[in-house]
Amino acid sequence: MTATTTNRAIRLASRPVGMPTADDWDLTEDPVGEPGDGEVLVEVMYVSLDPAMRGWISEAASYARPVGIGEVMRAIAVGRVIASRDERFVDGEHVSGLLGVQEYAIVPADGLQKVDPDVAPLPKWLGVLGMPGLTAYFGLLDIGRPEPDQTVVVSGAAGAVGSLVGQIATLQGARAVGIAGGPEKCAYLTGELGFDAAIDYKNEDVRAALRTTCPDGIDVYFDNVGGEILDAALARLAHGARVVICGAISQYNATEGMRGPANYMSLLVNHASMTGFLVFHYASRYAEGARQMGEWVAAGKLKSREDVVVGLERFPEALLKLFEGTNDGKLVIAVRES
Amino acid sequence: MTATTTNRAIRLASRPVGMPTADDWDLTEDPVGEPGDGEVLVEVMYVSLDPAMRGWISEAASYARPVGIGEVMRAIAVGRVIASRDERFVDGEHVSGLLGVQEYAIVPADGLQKVDPDVAPLPKWLGVLGMPGLTAYFGLLDIGRPEPDQTVVVSGAAGAVGSLVGQIATLQGARAVGIAGGPEKCAYLTGELGFDAAIDYKNEDVRAALRTTCPDGIDVYFDNVGGEILDAALARLAHGARVVICGAISQYNATEGMRGPANYMSLLVNHASMTGFLVFHYASRYAEGARQMGEWVAAGKLKSREDVVVGLERFPEALLKLFEGTNDGKLVIAVRES
Repeated sequence: MTATTTNRAIRLASRPVGMPTADDWDLTEDPVGEPGDGEVLVEVMYVSLDPAMRGWISEAASYARPVGIGEVMRAIAVGRVIASRDERFVDGEHVSGLLGVQEYAIVPADGLQKVDPDVAPLPKWLGVLGMPGLTAYFGLLDIGRPEPDQTVVVSGAAGAVGSLVGQIATLQGARAVGIAGGPEKCAYLTGELGFDAAIDYKNEDVRAALRTTCPDGIDVYFDNVGGEILDAALARLAHGARVVICGAISQYNATEGMRGPANYMSLLVNHASMTGFLVFHYASRYAEGARQMGEWVAAGKLKSREDVVVGLERFPEALLKLFEGTNDGKLVIAVRES
Repeated sequence: MTATTTNRAIRLASRPVGMPTADDWDLTEDPVGEPGDGEVLVEVMYVSLDPAMRGWISEAASYARPVGIGEVMRAIAVGRVIASRDERFVDGEHVSGLLGVQEYAIVPADGLQKVDPDVAPLPKWLGVLGMPGLTAYFGLLDIGRPEPDQTVVVSGAAGAVGSLVGQIATLQGARAVGIAGGPEKCAYLTGELGFDAAIDYKNEDVRAALRTTCPDGIDVYFDNVGGEILDAALARLAHGARVVICGAISQYNATEGMRGPANYMSLLVNHASMTGFLVFHYASRYAEGARQMGEWVAAGKLKSREDVVVGLERFPEALLKLFEGTNDGKLVIAVRES
């Protein structure tokens, strides 16, 4: 590592209208700097691609400051410490944090967590053992609160969060019904992950399929997608149902404003609730969630898979896989060929 | 009372599309019958007009069977027993129940509650001491759960339910902000009912006014109206806010489907919940609610007023006042001139 080492980074070039295109990004090269006091220089290895990224590049104020034009794209990632100016980290340790879409990151040590590649391969620390795992854990158990034999429906069910929601539901003794796009994903849900039923929204009438698969109604609906599927689920709620709002990926690229759930009056008829959350709201309980998820993974009770795209420069096209639903498991970028 | 006494009744003639018109109703005359075992013949005195009526005359399945074409319009009302075939009721007692929009009703005694005109005038038994009162009580205290110094916003604030929601909020030590149409209603809220602030949605920018009147955000939003005002309130939620869905009067006559709350993702950012209810869900706790509301009324802590329209035949036009927002207090029909 010398001052002349080059850092390649993906930077936001312009605010996308609707679906982001290749023109909205720049690939830049700059010298890697030196960490200051309390900072750590990390060689970034795997970058997490998440639906929330669409919000981060929008101008609208949200829970996070928008990524500025010309700034390195924000991303959670894992990497290896190569120079530390903080006593908590030494060279060679693996860490996760908001490292950005780049080859090298200089970040405050306070924002880093250690990860152990001997416990699980590094990409899993961005999925089942990372934020998606905690999102599924807290969203389902703290807000959804499924009881044994109740019916849990999750959309985006083959995705990083949804696939865990269904599996955690079955670990609670609940029935899990997943909504996903395409027969392969549906077969994965019922065949490998133990979902009780799967609905292929690309080829099935979701409303009719919810009637068939949820004869007693939906007790917990965990929503990752919004739009028509949210409305279909609302129309099928059981009395006292809990709707968990985790995301709305079908709406993130809408150019004419969000579509609200027209069937929200089903909440009234069914004395049901709809509650939203961000995983950050549970920061004080991360240790609890990480411990339980780790135990389940170690016991072989939670399966997960990762879709690894190789090459930092492929970020713009890889991001679109999320919105097209063509990723196959938790989507990450391997910064370098291994 | 003889078998030749005539009962005038308002019956549903056709299912309205959009706003109901005079043509959607028939005024019929039929002989009054005789109550059977377990039934009571009631002379109907005051009929309650409620936003829920719009749902009852729609074809769409809801919590209540739709009123059939040719059937007497469903309504809660108060009246006087004139013939009882049930030991629990004697002639001359006053009762409330689903008596319908008519002069005489023969109903099962099981569906009647006694009311005492010495405690409060009969129309108040359809408002503050009736279903609107219980709706405000349970919706605000069981779902909204305002804490002292928190901010409670209620729409339809000059209406039968909303005016009580704001007053109960202040009794809990919370701040009450009402949204109503027109300067007179707003003056009533802050001048007579003790609301801390009022927003005139017909003459003010509701979003701007919510920023001014709720500098720390909205902790509890009690919604009676839906539509744009619901979206404006969602945009101003505080962390952990509770949204109570009680009604959506702005949407009940929509001919192109309900409009969903486009800003529902505010629930996610703010870890907020949106919960619906029908007062019937609290049937097992009516006694508790009625006792507390009665105590507050007796202590002069809850003010209410009624808008009494005289004449059964004026039902079709009177109903529209609800949707136009031109009623001044709880809307009831006095079946006869007193």
